[in-house]
Amino acid sequence: MTAEITGLVCVKCARSYHAGDHLVCPHCGVEGILDVEYDYDRMKASLRREPLGRREDLSIWRYADMLPTGGLGSRMRRVGWTPLYSFSQLGSALGHSALFLKDDTVNPSASLKDRASAIAVAMAAEKGAGAIACASTGNAASSLAVLSASVELRSYIFVPQTIPRPKLFQLAACAERVFRVQGTYEDAFDLATKAIAAWGWENRNCAINPYLVEGKKTCSLEVYEQMGYRVPDWVVVPVGDGCIISGQWKAFKELKIVGETTALPRLLAVQADGCRPIVDAFANDADLVPVEGNTFADSIRVGKPRNWRKALKALRESGGSAVGVSDGEIAEAAVLLGRKTGLFAEPAAAAGLAGCRKAVELGLIKSDEVAVVLVTGSGLKDPEAIANSVRVCDTGRDLESVAKWL
Amino acid sequence: MTAEITGLVCVKCARSYHAGDHLVCPHCGVEGILDVEYDYDRMKASLRREPLGRREDLSIWRYADMLPTGGLGSRMRRVGWTPLYSFSQLGSALGHSALFLKDDTVNPSASLKDRASAIAVAMAAEKGAGAIACASTGNAASSLAVLSASVELRSYIFVPQTIPRPKLFQLAACAERVFRVQGTYEDAFDLATKAIAAWGWENRNCAINPYLVEGKKTCSLEVYEQMGYRVPDWVVVPVGDGCIISGQWKAFKELKIVGETTALPRLLAVQADGCRPIVDAFANDADLVPVEGNTFADSIRVGKPRNWRKALKALRESGGSAVGVSDGEIAEAAVLLGRKTGLFAEPAAAAGLAGCRKAVELGLIKSDEVAVVLVTGSGLKDPEAIANSVRVCDTGRDLESVAKWL
Repeated sequence: MTAEITGLVCVKCARSYHAGDHLVCPHCGVEGILDVEYDYDRMKASLRREPLGRREDLSIWRYADMLPTGGLGSRMRRVGWTPLYSFSQLGSALGHSALFLKDDTVNPSASLKDRASAIAVAMAAEKGAGAIACASTGNAASSLAVLSASVELRSYIFVPQTIPRPKLFQLAACAERVFRVQGTYEDAFDLATKAIAAWGWENRNCAINPYLVEGKKTCSLEVYEQMGYRVPDWVVVPVGDGCIISGQWKAFKELKIVGETTALPRLLAVQADGCRPIVDAFANDADLVPVEGNTFADSIRVGKPRNWRKALKALRESGGSAVGVSDGEIAEAAVLLGRKTGLFAEPAAAAGLAGCRKAVELGLIKSDEVAVVLVTGSGLKDPEAIANSVRVCDTGRDLESVAKWL
Repeated sequence: MTAEITGLVCVKCARSYHAGDHLVCPHCGVEGILDVEYDYDRMKASLRREPLGRREDLSIWRYADMLPTGGLGSRMRRVGWTPLYSFSQLGSALGHSALFLKDDTVNPSASLKDRASAIAVAMAAEKGAGAIACASTGNAASSLAVLSASVELRSYIFVPQTIPRPKLFQLAACAERVFRVQGTYEDAFDLATKAIAAWGWENRNCAINPYLVEGKKTCSLEVYEQMGYRVPDWVVVPVGDGCIISGQWKAFKELKIVGETTALPRLLAVQADGCRPIVDAFANDADLVPVEGNTFADSIRVGKPRNWRKALKALRESGGSAVGVSDGEIAEAAVLLGRKTGLFAEPAAAAGLAGCRKAVELGLIKSDEVAVVLVTGSGLKDPEAIANSVRVCDTGRDLESVAKWL
């Protein structure tokens, strides 16, 4: 059984709409991102009948009664139920005794975005759509292409020229078409929006499609369950468009609404210093001012985040915070993560750890507060990014040439 | 409870040794690969007490009573229990109605090799070793580096110069040292062997270390369980050193020994035409003749396979077969896999599907025989490999430049 949607509420003007009527608020336009609301009494009853922890499905669909769709069963590749780790050696290196990592690098397309695309693809397939499209810096696109292919849905993908080549070829292998747009992510987004209108494709653009955040919720639902039905003190999230962090907040709020918990976590948003419009808006307690983004962490190089209102609202409601980290700090965190845990993260995904480290140093996160860092995407998506931060020992075929590196 | 080892038997001379005494047969040298034998009555009793299917562990350690080690619990990253898929659209494309894919791309380091490294790392940690080493075309190495890092074991890795850059950087992020050896995989293997002897590191070289095949068994143990306790008609395996296919055969033979099943599958070995010493030895019913390997599928570019005896024995005992596929056929299979299922496989991993397709065309595999193709590693490991086989649509920022690609 899926959750019953009672309405879609605009995050800007708070007007409410029936499900299916609109993708964004008709009064506010693309600024008016919608938020999905459910019949929470019904959800509560469902959770009473089948409590969390007693469910057999080893994927995001174990939470079907908290989602707008129940998925497509074994037709779609398996998404979610990723490991939650606690490596004491990493905590020690950071001077932090309660650090957890949520490893979303092992999703089908190797990023957290699979959680959102799974919802989009399932809803599109349920209504008999033949094609779906999105613009993306890479991960949303590859997850859409990968999951669409698994259920025979055609995917049309718009990416900026700066996309790392591994992401490009992953896409090219799986998508119906990959359009590499001469310009930035914002240009790709605008062109995708026009093309979607012109050809009537389903819209998977994350901030625009209100159902996608619902998929992202599942990451924190898993964290809650995997921690033994406890809410961490902090959830640390790398932020681009602002959709992932919004989804995590919605998960915990809904767990509270249905009576699973009374606690809520604080959120820490992490952005790259070269592209930190949400960090700055949070610090200035102001609306977002778009910037020209510049960072090697391409998955969070979003100068004009579409979902900044939801993200800032989540940060403020949670009593959270936001920090910027330099590209150097991100690269250092990526290598620390690799060496101490074997998790190979793309720069944007390593940014979470870099931000957590900074927050501990700043005293924002106390060293004994339970912090969960989302590792949002695999380093295999963009391996060249750390080429200058690691060492390869070139040798001949003799022991002496090995010995000199030891 | 782990399985009790009763002896190590040489695959060349059939002499038997006590566990722990030797890594290879002292009479036959490196030609004398050892095979692990267990107390099967004890294994049978254990399976009676706790049948397959009633186990909660969602990793290879659910089969601890069929393995030489029970693992390190939550200290190590989660390996195994990967999905088994059946996508009807792929079967239709191949004219094959009972095709399954075992998706080992979602292991921690994105390849099947994690199953073997998990055993090596657990056994090394259990005996208090500080360091472990291997030579590898890439995947064995990255799995060793990744899993070692997660349990604070130092890893020393030897790779050939031809290693794809994504694999190189994944290694460099996680390993203690990565030695890029001037030469081929064979040169890297020889240098690693010398260094292991010189510095007393644990040896993870697959053909040499008899326990690694035990980890690879778990892939077929999962297949058996995921198919509802049935043995497929065929298991299709890309072959390099010959260790993976040997492991699959051992899994099914042991399931038969302990009385789980009476059936055994037939094995299909797939190699690239540019490097097919095992295919040729099988066809000629002869011993292996080493070759100069030449294929873009780097994970199976092994001209002098160390485990050819075990591999050929498995093929012959199973009544199986062996086929070669061209690099073009592999690339085509990689794109077919992506477009029809969303699985992005590296060339060596796509070789399995290419081989299955050929075997169906040749009538070796009947169109209604149940075939499981092992998808052994992620395409993100070597995305450039398919650069010339896929299309990227370059566009401006206007709809017209999109339309011309539709």
